[in-house]
Amino acid sequence: MKRTKIIDVLQDTQYGKTVDVCGWVRTHRSSKAVDFIALNDGSTIKNVQVVVDTAKVDEELLKQITTGACLHVTGTLVESPAQGQASEIQCQAIEIYGTCGADYPMQKKGQSFEYMRQHAHMRLRTNTFGAVMRIRHNMAMAIHTYFHQHGFFYFHTPLITASDCEGAGNMFQVTTKNLYDLKKDEEGKIIYDDDFFGQQTSLTVSGQLEGELGATALGAIYTFGPTFRAENSNTPRHLAEFWMIEPEIAFLDQEELMDLEEDFIKYCVRWALDNCCDDLEFLNKMIDKTLIQRLESVVDTQFVRLPYTEGINILQEAIKQGKKFEFPCNWGDDLASEHERYLVEEHFKKPVIMTDYPRAFKSFYMKQNQDTDDGGSVGYKGAVAPGPTMQGTDVLFPQIGEIIGGSVREESYDKLMGEIKRRDMDMTHLWWYIDTRRFGTCPHAGFGLGFERLILFVTGMQNIRDVIPFPRTPKNAEF
Amino acid sequence: MKRTKIIDVLQDTQYGKTVDVCGWVRTHRSSKAVDFIALNDGSTIKNVQVVVDTAKVDEELLKQITTGACLHVTGTLVESPAQGQASEIQCQAIEIYGTCGADYPMQKKGQSFEYMRQHAHMRLRTNTFGAVMRIRHNMAMAIHTYFHQHGFFYFHTPLITASDCEGAGNMFQVTTKNLYDLKKDEEGKIIYDDDFFGQQTSLTVSGQLEGELGATALGAIYTFGPTFRAENSNTPRHLAEFWMIEPEIAFLDQEELMDLEEDFIKYCVRWALDNCCDDLEFLNKMIDKTLIQRLESVVDTQFVRLPYTEGINILQEAIKQGKKFEFPCNWGDDLASEHERYLVEEHFKKPVIMTDYPRAFKSFYMKQNQDTDDGGSVGYKGAVAPGPTMQGTDVLFPQIGEIIGGSVREESYDKLMGEIKRRDMDMTHLWWYIDTRRFGTCPHAGFGLGFERLILFVTGMQNIRDVIPFPRTPKNAEF
Repeated sequence: MKRTKIIDVLQDTQYGKTVDVCGWVRTHRSSKAVDFIALNDGSTIKNVQVVVDTAKVDEELLKQITTGACLHVTGTLVESPAQGQASEIQCQAIEIYGTCGADYPMQKKGQSFEYMRQHAHMRLRTNTFGAVMRIRHNMAMAIHTYFHQHGFFYFHTPLITASDCEGAGNMFQVTTKNLYDLKKDEEGKIIYDDDFFGQQTSLTVSGQLEGELGATALGAIYTFGPTFRAENSNTPRHLAEFWMIEPEIAFLDQEELMDLEEDFIKYCVRWALDNCCDDLEFLNKMIDKTLIQRLESVVDTQFVRLPYTEGINILQEAIKQGKKFEFPCNWGDDLASEHERYLVEEHFKKPVIMTDYPRAFKSFYMKQNQDTDDGGSVGYKGAVAPGPTMQGTDVLFPQIGEIIGGSVREESYDKLMGEIKRRDMDMTHLWWYIDTRRFGTCPHAGFGLGFERLILFVTGMQNIRDVIPFPRTPKNAEF
Repeated sequence: MKRTKIIDVLQDTQYGKTVDVCGWVRTHRSSKAVDFIALNDGSTIKNVQVVVDTAKVDEELLKQITTGACLHVTGTLVESPAQGQASEIQCQAIEIYGTCGADYPMQKKGQSFEYMRQHAHMRLRTNTFGAVMRIRHNMAMAIHTYFHQHGFFYFHTPLITASDCEGAGNMFQVTTKNLYDLKKDEEGKIIYDDDFFGQQTSLTVSGQLEGELGATALGAIYTFGPTFRAENSNTPRHLAEFWMIEPEIAFLDQEELMDLEEDFIKYCVRWALDNCCDDLEFLNKMIDKTLIQRLESVVDTQFVRLPYTEGINILQEAIKQGKKFEFPCNWGDDLASEHERYLVEEHFKKPVIMTDYPRAFKSFYMKQNQDTDDGGSVGYKGAVAPGPTMQGTDVLFPQIGEIIGGSVREESYDKLMGEIKRRDMDMTHLWWYIDTRRFGTCPHAGFGLGFERLILFVTGMQNIRDVIPFPRTPKNAEF
């Protein structure tokens, strides 16, 4: 038996030939002397229609062909009278691989997403989740292809880490210790000498710092792997285990970093539009009627590049004009989702790359803008800020908010150490990171993209738990 | 400044034009009135030669250009008189991004691999590790490209799992519990209600079972992600954290599975030969003189397909002829590395796909061959075994041993449950796996490939710690 995938059968017009298809029954309906079986094998959202002459097939066998059953059908490829498909199959023989009882969880159409999550092992067989998973695959492929073509090397940073694990409350501890027999020292502190790694370890929250080691050797790298946050956040935007993409590039300045961010994300969205038409059309119809239009608008538009200080001015002006926000947005405040959305969706009506954030709420490793005499600083394209700023470059998207968080990294050993001191950080476990600034330091930059955020944007799905096969959230590690 | 990567400069023959290159100094030597600086930016193993007229450059600046320093050089592209490179750069101006002191760990050539591991954050800047990391990237790209072109979907199975974590001694526990305040029930058992996931969780040892959920919905999937084993193995073959590729395919039989395994691995090796010439030539010269020859032999040869029972016969015959093995190899024994290597390297002198292993030492989910009346079984191409066998299909490689472990999966609910009972397994946490055999079950198969094993084979490196950026091994979670 040489099986043909349904995606290929549907495009094949060599009518009259015999084909073998396998798949799961989506529907089975009877009409006078013929039965129609809609069969799907996951290769495409479209089903192939199998037309069965009921006189020629055993009645008992036909009865077993219920929704969810798995079949092998041998038949003749014929032109389809139905719209939207070139071909269908005139059945010659049916073999049932697996029957499917009435307790099949995906029996009924239109079940809630909450119900689907409880049956995540079976929801993959539905149209919506099939579409989402195929798009997810395509976005991963777009990412790898983009970086490969641009001379980046895929770099596997470790997941188990001894850095940064002390005192970080939102990390998962990793241990092989016998919790029934925890040895402690004289002060009552747990001894980790006998733990697997001989010290306390946890799951990484970011591969960036190791990524910088890669970039300052190989020139340009990217990570693409799982990342963990033990935050007790039960929201449609948070997962405890999610996938991140973190490119890191030597010899890149802020302008080039923004060029890269914009080019990269447009490439991904364009890939979806070019390669996931059927799935996008389905989602556009069933999930979000403005989806394809929104994707196209991102690809076709030039992103706004906006220093934070200018963003604050726009928000302040809006407040003067009567706009109400829940949270304050004075210079120095970290912008809330409502502020970002106002700028992106109402003011500019296009994606915004925000730059030059106040140092106070950005990370220690970001490149510091040049300070002025009055305590301010000069950033992107000479933009003057009333306080010290850093060369962050975050991409804000409609509906999603921050989809990319990026920055130029501080390459100066002295400035970096000054910032570490200012923040009173313990760098004992990060001696290797500091070494990059000691030995042949170089200008470099990078960004992080939450993969599921991208999938949310590209699929129009509303809940992050519905764009990953088996979500990990507080109190949920099923499957 | 528009930087040109060194890989592009070396191929450029538009002599006379001005180029900007950035990179790290590999060597700096003086010769009469000119200095030669070998600069590398990680884009290729090759350095670009920068020729400096010492009369035109500040002497103090030249002194700072030591091995490891990072430079930005502006210069004229000229034809190189040296062999093996078309172009070199006549220096116009040098900017030092970062100096590099004498304590630079990669100062000297020919340091031991053990020394390099202790400085894994800097070893990436050496020829050997640059080559290995570029090849590693290329192998990842080959894998994604192969599966994409063959209609497989990249499927992200979870890393944190509640399945299989009880009693599995070689798993890492993942917890957010306060180890100083472990609540216990009346029987003294630790209560996990208040752990992050509300139950005991650990890091996955394989994504296969979840992968089967993907395959029985999407038709063909593959995983490519980190996997964990808390084995206290200090060998050149073991990592506690490594990357695995696990394709899983619906409607595939044993013969087709072997076709896939062979085609897939040949594609990867061919990719390396086609796309990593410079790095392979370096490794062939410095690490393993038979490397390229071995890679070519794999691509050009047809793999042997050998039922386990026939393999045992060959080994027994060899023993009769005087061959000595350390471990026994009677029917029913799990083959040791020495047996596999004898078959691959001495007897067949080519890769072997071994099939139809005794049920006793293979996993519960493997498809059972048809039993015969006398307690034996019939497997691949009618091969008769003296005991019950399963449709495993492992690929054995020269030098590496088992590089792929694969099998057809048992699709029959009754047979699978029989095997689970026979092994007295607790399937409480795997109810969802059993469901695949209850609802529209189908023939399917898959395999697992340890990514680092593949990299070892393709690079000729001897120690698995040297083919991943930052290895995780017992007592070692540095970087």
